[in-house]
Amino acid sequence: MSDVRIDDLPVRDELRGKSPYGAPQLDVPVRLNTNENPYPLPEPLVERIAERVREAARHLNRYPDRDAVELRTRLAAYLTRTSGHEVGLGNVWAANGSNEVIQQLLQTFGGPGRTAIGFEPSYSMHALIARGTGTGWISGPRGEDFTIDLAAAREAIAGHRPDVVFVTTPNNPTGTAVPPETVTALYEAAQAAKPSLVIVDEAYIEFSHGPSLLPLLEGRPHLVISRTMSKAFGAAGLRLGYLAAHPAVVDAVQLVRLPYHLSAVTQATALAALEHTDTLLGYVEQLKTERDRLVTELRAIGYEVTASDANFVQFGRFADAHAAWQKILDRGVLVRDNGVPGWLRVTAGTPQENDAFLDAVRELKKEQSA
Amino acid sequence: MSDVRIDDLPVRDELRGKSPYGAPQLDVPVRLNTNENPYPLPEPLVERIAERVREAARHLNRYPDRDAVELRTRLAAYLTRTSGHEVGLGNVWAANGSNEVIQQLLQTFGGPGRTAIGFEPSYSMHALIARGTGTGWISGPRGEDFTIDLAAAREAIAGHRPDVVFVTTPNNPTGTAVPPETVTALYEAAQAAKPSLVIVDEAYIEFSHGPSLLPLLEGRPHLVISRTMSKAFGAAGLRLGYLAAHPAVVDAVQLVRLPYHLSAVTQATALAALEHTDTLLGYVEQLKTERDRLVTELRAIGYEVTASDANFVQFGRFADAHAAWQKILDRGVLVRDNGVPGWLRVTAGTPQENDAFLDAVRELKKEQSA
Repeated sequence: MSDVRIDDLPVRDELRGKSPYGAPQLDVPVRLNTNENPYPLPEPLVERIAERVREAARHLNRYPDRDAVELRTRLAAYLTRTSGHEVGLGNVWAANGSNEVIQQLLQTFGGPGRTAIGFEPSYSMHALIARGTGTGWISGPRGEDFTIDLAAAREAIAGHRPDVVFVTTPNNPTGTAVPPETVTALYEAAQAAKPSLVIVDEAYIEFSHGPSLLPLLEGRPHLVISRTMSKAFGAAGLRLGYLAAHPAVVDAVQLVRLPYHLSAVTQATALAALEHTDTLLGYVEQLKTERDRLVTELRAIGYEVTASDANFVQFGRFADAHAAWQKILDRGVLVRDNGVPGWLRVTAGTPQENDAFLDAVRELKKEQSA
Repeated sequence: MSDVRIDDLPVRDELRGKSPYGAPQLDVPVRLNTNENPYPLPEPLVERIAERVREAARHLNRYPDRDAVELRTRLAAYLTRTSGHEVGLGNVWAANGSNEVIQQLLQTFGGPGRTAIGFEPSYSMHALIARGTGTGWISGPRGEDFTIDLAAAREAIAGHRPDVVFVTTPNNPTGTAVPPETVTALYEAAQAAKPSLVIVDEAYIEFSHGPSLLPLLEGRPHLVISRTMSKAFGAAGLRLGYLAAHPAVVDAVQLVRLPYHLSAVTQATALAALEHTDTLLGYVEQLKTERDRLVTELRAIGYEVTASDANFVQFGRFADAHAAWQKILDRGVLVRDNGVPGWLRVTAGTPQENDAFLDAVRELKKEQSA
C-alpha cells in the first residue's frame, strides 16, 4: 500500500503528472521572492488583533456571520475613502485570499464549457484556478515591453470570445500598470464578443503611481475589481481577499460560495487591521520609495528593468535566468524565477534587505562582465 | 444599472433561479437548528487562543505555513489517540471547514464528466459542492427507516458507476450510524464498478455510540475519512475541517488546493483548541447524555424518533413539517426543517435549551391531539 502514488488513484486526467503550485520555501537570510510586505504589523495592532480574536473566540462555538457584514462594510469604507468612488456593503464580497475570490468568480461565470483569457506573462494562479474549476484557459498576448498591446488583445478577445477576461494591474510578475483607457477598451471588446465578465486584479494597486480603477465600475455591471489585504495591509498570513462590483455580482457568487467560508477569527483579524489602515499605508509609502530605488540602482548597475507600479521589480536580461537566480541565492538572497525567459523578479524589502540584494546582483554583474 | 439582477449576468445556466445555501439566521431565544455545540469554549482556552494568535500576528506579513505541518501533526495525534488507528502527518490534510475538504476532493476525483453519489436524505452540501465543481450528482436510495439498504445501494453503485461515493456516518439530518460492514461492502462495490473514491463523512462521529471508521483506512487507498472541529471541538466559527487517508490522496488534493489556503490565525486557533481536547470531549459526553434524553422524552411525549448517533435528533411525524416548525418557532425555539417530508431536526443544546424545546413540542402535541 505504501507504493500507491497519485497517478495510481482515480484522479482527473488533467491532474496527472502535475505538481502543486508554490514558490520554494527555503531558509535563506533575505527572502524577496513572494512579494510579502517586509514590515511586521505594529505591536499596537498585534494587541488589537489578540483582543478582537479573544472576543470572537468567546462565541466560536457558533457559526460566523455568514455574510461578513461588518467586515464588508469596513472594506467598502476603505475603498471609498482611498479611491473617491463610493462603494457600499452590497458592492463588496470577501473570501480566504483573492485566490478564493477568483475561484468563486470562475465557478459562477466560468467552469466547464467556458473559457477565460489572461495576457501572459501574468499571475499564474489565474490559469491554475481556471484548470481547478474546469474553465478553459486562453493565453492572451502581451507586448515585448510587457504592456498589453490593445489591438492584439482585442483581436484575441474577438477571436476566442472568452467568458471571463483577466486584466492584472499592476501586472505580476512584470510590475506593469494597465491604463484605464485600455481596461475600458477591453471591457467594450469583451461585451461586443460575448457578454463576459472582466476581472481587474488589483492585488498590488496600493503600490501604484496611479489611482485604482474602481471608478470604472460605474455603469459596467460586468466589471469586477479584486483586491487583497496580503500586500498593502502586510497580512499575507491572514488570507483575506475581496472584490468590488455591481451588487448583482455579489449576489451571484453567493450561489457557489461555501456557506460560512470566512471564519470568525479571520473576520476579527481583518477588522483589527482595517482599524490601523493609516499606519499600514505609511509602510506602503516607504516600500514605494524603496521600489523606486531598486529600479534606479538596478539600471545604474547595468540591468534592464521593467517599469514597476508594484512592490516588486522585474529585472534582466539573463542568458540563463535560472542560473542567475541560483547565483543570487548562493549570496543569501532569494528572488523569484517566474519562468519569464531572461527575467527575474525581486520583492521590495526593507532598506537593509534591498542593500543585500543590490550587493548580490552588483557582484553578479561584475562576474558576468569579467 | 440598479435593476441588474443575477439572471441578467452571464452566470452559468445551472445557477439561474437558484438561491444561496444556508439556514435562516433568526434572532430567537433558543437556537437548535444548525447543530452547533451550545457550550462556549472555556475561558482558559479563549486566553490560549488569544496568546497563540498574538504570536502568529507578529509574523502575519509573511505567508502562513503552506503545508500546515504542525496542525496536521497534532490532528493526526488526536485521531490516533481517539481511534487507536495510527495516522501520521502524511495521512492528514486540513482546510477551511469540511466543506472545503470535500470541494478539494471533488475537484481532484470528481468534476466535469464525472459523477458522485450520496444516499439521501443526507448532508445537502455534498450535492451542492458537486454542482459547484461540475460533478454530476446521483441521489442514491435510503431505507424507510433511514438506514442504508445495502442491496439497493450496491445496485445503484453498479448501475451508475460513480467516481465518488459519499457515506455520512452518523448521517445528517437523520442521525443514523452506518455499520462498518456496510461501509466495507460499499467500498468493494465501488471498486468493482469503477475504481472510485469513497468519502466517509464523520463530521459528528465524536457523538456516536460506536467508534470511528478510521481503522478501515488500512489497505483501502481509495477511502477518505472527513472530519471537522466545528462540532465536537465547539468551534463552528473556526472553520476547520480535515481528512485522513492514504498519503497519495493527501498529495493529490494539493494539486487543486489554493496555495496558502489555511491562514496563520486559523492554524494558531486550531492548535490552541487541540491543546484543550480533553475538556472539549467532556462537553461531548454531556451532549451525548442530553441527546439520549431528547430521544427518550420525545418518544414519551408520543413522537417518532430516528435512532441518533449525532448531536441532533430527527423527530416526527408531521402531516405538515413546515407548519410544525413554525409553531415551535412561535414558542421561541428554532429547529430545522431539512425538507425531509414529515420530519424535523433538533440540535442537542444545553439542558435548559432542551427543556424549552421539550416544553414547546409537548404543547404542540397537546394542541394536535386536542
